[in-house]
Formats: sequence, structure tokens, C-alpha cells
Amino acid sequence: MKIAIAGAGAMGGRFGYMLHKAGNDVTLIDQWEPHVAAIREKGFQINFNGEDIIAKLPIYFPAEVVSSKMEFELIILFTKAMQLEGMLQALGPVITNKDTYVICLLNGIGYEKILEKYVPQKNVLFGNTMWTAGLVGPGKIKLQGTGTVDFRNLHPDGEEMAHKVVKLFTDAGLSGVYTEDVHHTIYKKACVNGTVNGLCTLLDVNMNGLSIASCGQDMIRAIIAEFAAVAAVEGVKLDQEAIAAFILNACDLNVVGRHYPSMYQDLIGQNRLTEIDYINGVIVKKGKEYGIPTPYCAFLTELVHCKEDILKAK
Amino acid sequence: MKIAIAGAGAMGGRFGYMLHKAGNDVTLIDQWEPHVAAIREKGFQINFNGEDIIAKLPIYFPAEVVSSKMEFELIILFTKAMQLEGMLQALGPVITNKDTYVICLLNGIGYEKILEKYVPQKNVLFGNTMWTAGLVGPGKIKLQGTGTVDFRNLHPDGEEMAHKVVKLFTDAGLSGVYTEDVHHTIYKKACVNGTVNGLCTLLDVNMNGLSIASCGQDMIRAIIAEFAAVAAVEGVKLDQEAIAAFILNACDLNVVGRHYPSMYQDLIGQNRLTEIDYINGVIVKKGKEYGIPTPYCAFLTELVHCKEDILKAK
Repeated sequence: MKIAIAGAGAMGGRFGYMLHKAGNDVTLIDQWEPHVAAIREKGFQINFNGEDIIAKLPIYFPAEVVSSKMEFELIILFTKAMQLEGMLQALGPVITNKDTYVICLLNGIGYEKILEKYVPQKNVLFGNTMWTAGLVGPGKIKLQGTGTVDFRNLHPDGEEMAHKVVKLFTDAGLSGVYTEDVHHTIYKKACVNGTVNGLCTLLDVNMNGLSIASCGQDMIRAIIAEFAAVAAVEGVKLDQEAIAAFILNACDLNVVGRHYPSMYQDLIGQNRLTEIDYINGVIVKKGKEYGIPTPYCAFLTELVHCKEDILKAK
Repeated sequence: MKIAIAGAGAMGGRFGYMLHKAGNDVTLIDQWEPHVAAIREKGFQINFNGEDIIAKLPIYFPAEVVSSKMEFELIILFTKAMQLEGMLQALGPVITNKDTYVICLLNGIGYEKILEKYVPQKNVLFGNTMWTAGLVGPGKIKLQGTGTVDFRNLHPDGEEMAHKVVKLFTDAGLSGVYTEDVHHTIYKKACVNGTVNGLCTLLDVNMNGLSIASCGQDMIRAIIAEFAAVAAVEGVKLDQEAIAAFILNACDLNVVGRHYPSMYQDLIGQNRLTEIDYINGVIVKKGKEYGIPTPYCAFLTELVHCKEDILKAK
């Protein structure tokens, strides 16, 4: 399949590399200049489960993709939350092509509203992934562990393509899963990000370290409870104990316990602003709207913003 | 006056040195071996408002004080919260002498119950201090900024001595203040510790950095609100805005804004367990008892305990 990865950081790099290795025609699109320059010069330097690989993948700035009138069957969106709208705008006609499907797999909640401004609903696939990926520096990523990609079509007309993309991912070793209840899928993943991302970032620890430390599990459960209360108002029923067990299993050293979540990589690793507003911040906002107290999400959001400010993150 | 400082760390060192310089007979008592050894060998190395001073002060372990049957007119308690009861037990007859007054100035809430088990109530003076002090390492402290010592007698019979000690402190430059409402004084100081201590420790920033960072003041106000709600049940009325203003004033670079609170010094500086249970933890416990939600104090207490565990603090 002719595929573009729009936002080719750590996770975009994982998908791009694995889809390319499986025989697809993959183009990377990114806006981070040092990253684009490094990949053009040296190839994408990937440590894949311990093995060092150089992946020769084409990478372009969005403007180049537009001026060359490139066309894709599938565009996989993996930007940071705050860059999503800018990427969609920058890709303009490339993303609104009536034969181009767009799959959004970003961490966080509430991207449907942004997507529907730029992409016909029947062309949108929507979900998220439990895969992890680590950015080492411009042009360099580290990939380990396992995961799944859970998504579906937003519009009934997109179902055929959704199943095709499930197979595409599975054939590439990415374990595609067609999810009936995408809102549940999104809330479940948001619970993972809403707990380990902020907490690991603040406490300077990996997922396993958080899960085995005193109070780690108490905090994870308190945050899940707030997500569940908000989700319930929207008709999404989250089994809090099952989600806690799911997160704690992921924190096992034999799963992805050694992983430092993307928020840690952004703020502590790269001194970049975080996606906290699109994860815990959304719960605070919805909580206010629904009259549900969300103090753990509020305090965590404030702490992360405070840390961003202290570190002068950009 | 013949004075002992029981718990001669950074703050005990400040009081010991300033009272000694004012002509009092000061004895230090401490249980931390490297600290006692360093002071015996090299004297107390004090950076006092930028000037390096060696203070030759006698320092003993509690057992030595007991076996030598030392007597004091005043014992100033400046242990860490969790060491208070151990110190009182270790000092045994020295602290229960009917002519010995004991003044407790520890950070935190609820020490009356511990004190009354060991010291006759009429001999107890009680309050706290807004002075700061920094531990550099065993036998080394750094002192800057200004402050006051606010306290009173617990029993009417102690009033004469309380006024004597107010004068003692003031004559030594420590600005003694006789406070009518000691519970208000203690809650007010607990609000200072309950905000800047945990937050600066978690965020790795000094008081000024916290106060000027995004969300810093929001978090300070949210925590004060919980202290105020709990205090109100006990008949202590806290003016939340006045306390926030008091804390933010302290965070000014011209006051003590460069200061890293004692909890930061303990955990990040010395890898020691913190006093969080005696500050925010007390509010959580009282909140549960009174049916008042205290999620910010609960989350902060959990985060600090988690950090202690991650750092393997002892």
C-alpha cells in the first residue's frame, strides 16, 4: 500500500519502518528540521529490539509533499497532539484527496473534532496503539516490547478500508485489531497515558519503577477513577479494576516496564512541551462540564505544566 | 541561659549558633553520627549570610547527656518529625527535670500529643519558626534570610518563661514573638510547609521558581484551601488569601525565594525520608475524620512517598 506517516517521530518511525519492511511504499512526513536532516543524511537509525538498523526511508516536509502533489492511499497521523491541526492544515489537498484514508492514532482524547474540520468523515479511521517507541535524538529511535493497534472506521462507508488496514498492520507485525467500541478503546488508552505519562515524568522513573513504588498503584487507581467517572457520563463504561490490571501488566519488566513514556521523552528527554492538556487536561475540562470532581487530573496537569515552565520547555 | 538544642541540624544549628553568639551557654544534642563527628573534629562550619564561620559548640549524643546528668533551663526541640519521640525517650530524665522548659518548634501539626507523654504541660512552650536554614552536609550549614519565632506556653503557669524566651530569642536576633493563638500560628506555618515543601521537592525548584512558574500559585492556593477547611472544623479560621500572600511574599528573591525547603534538603539533598506525613498527611487524616475532601494533600503525600521509594531514601 502507498502510505504516508505524518509525524515521523518515535512511534511514526516504528510504524513506518515495520510497514516498509513488510513491503509497503512508505513516505515519512515531519516538520522537525534536525530530524528530517538527520534521516536524509544518515537514514533512520533504529535500534529494533536490540539490533541496530539503518532504514532508508524518504522523508519530506509537508510543504514538499504538497508542492510535489504526492498521493497516498493511507496517511497515518502520529504527530504530537498540539501539532495535529498544523499538520492537517499544512497537508491541505494531500489529506483531503477523496481516495486517501486517514488514520488517527494519537494519544489523548477529542481529536474527532479537529479531524472533521479537514477530512471527510467517511475517510477517517480512528483509534490508538499500545505499542511504545523511544526517541533517542534527531533521526534515532529505540524500539522494544510488543503492542496492538486498535481502531475502526468513523463512518459505515469506511469499514472495508478499516479491515484492509487491520490486515496491513497485522501483516507488518503490528497486530491490528478492529474495535467495535472505539470510544472505549480511546478511554482505555487514555487511562494508560493519563497515569503513567504524567507520573513517570514528574517522578523521573520508568513504568516499572512507578508501579512497584509506594503509592504508585494508589495514584494510578485514583486517576483511573476520575477517567471512569467522566467516561460514564458519555456512556462509556470503564471497568476500573480491569484497566488497573492492564496498566500494571504493561508495567511488568517483561512487557514494557523499562519504557519511559512519551511525555517523559518529550519533557525530560527533549525539553519539549507535553501533551498533558490532551490527556488529563481533557478530563478536567469535561469534569467541569459534567459536574464531576477531577482533582487528581487537575493537580497532575498543573504539576506537569509547572515542570514545563521550570525547564523552559518549548 | 543554659540551653540545649535537641536536634542540631540546619535549623537547630542556626538557633544554637545565634544564641551562643548572644552570650548563652549552648549545648548541641544530635543522633546523626557523621554530623556529631564533623562538629567535634572541625567545629560547626556555618556560612552565615555569606560569611564563613567556625562555631566551637559542644555536641553530644543523647545518651552522653543523660549519663553526664546534664541540666538545662531550656531545651529547644528541632528534630525531624519522625525523630521527635525517639529524642524525648532518649533524653529521659534530662527532659523531665521539673526546672527544665521545653520548646517545640518543629514543622508540622500534632506534636502536643507526643510532648504530653514526656514533658509536664506547664513546662512546654509551643510554636514554630519562619526562619530557614540549609544543611550542606555533616557539620556544615548555610544560613540566609530573615524570620521570626512565634510561640507561647501551653499551660498558664508557663507564661512568665514564655516571655523570657521571647526576649532571649529577640536578643539573639531571632525575633521572638509571643503568639496568643498558637493553633493559628501552627496552621499558618503548616500551610507554608504544606505547599512549598512538597511542591519544590517534586518539581526540583526553589521557592521563587515555584511561585513564578505556570500553575505554581494555583497549586499553592488549592492546597491552602484544604488546610483551611480542616482547620475550620477545629475552630481555627485561616484567611486563605492572606496566607497565600504571605507565602508568595516569602518566595520573593529578596526574602527567602532562593531557599530550597527542608523537605527538598532531606530527600533530594540527603536521600532521607521526609516529614510529609506530619504536614500534608495530617490534613488527609483529619480530612477523613471530619468528612472533608483533601485530594491535593492526598496526592502530594502519595507523590512524595513514591519519590522517597524511588530514591530508596532512608
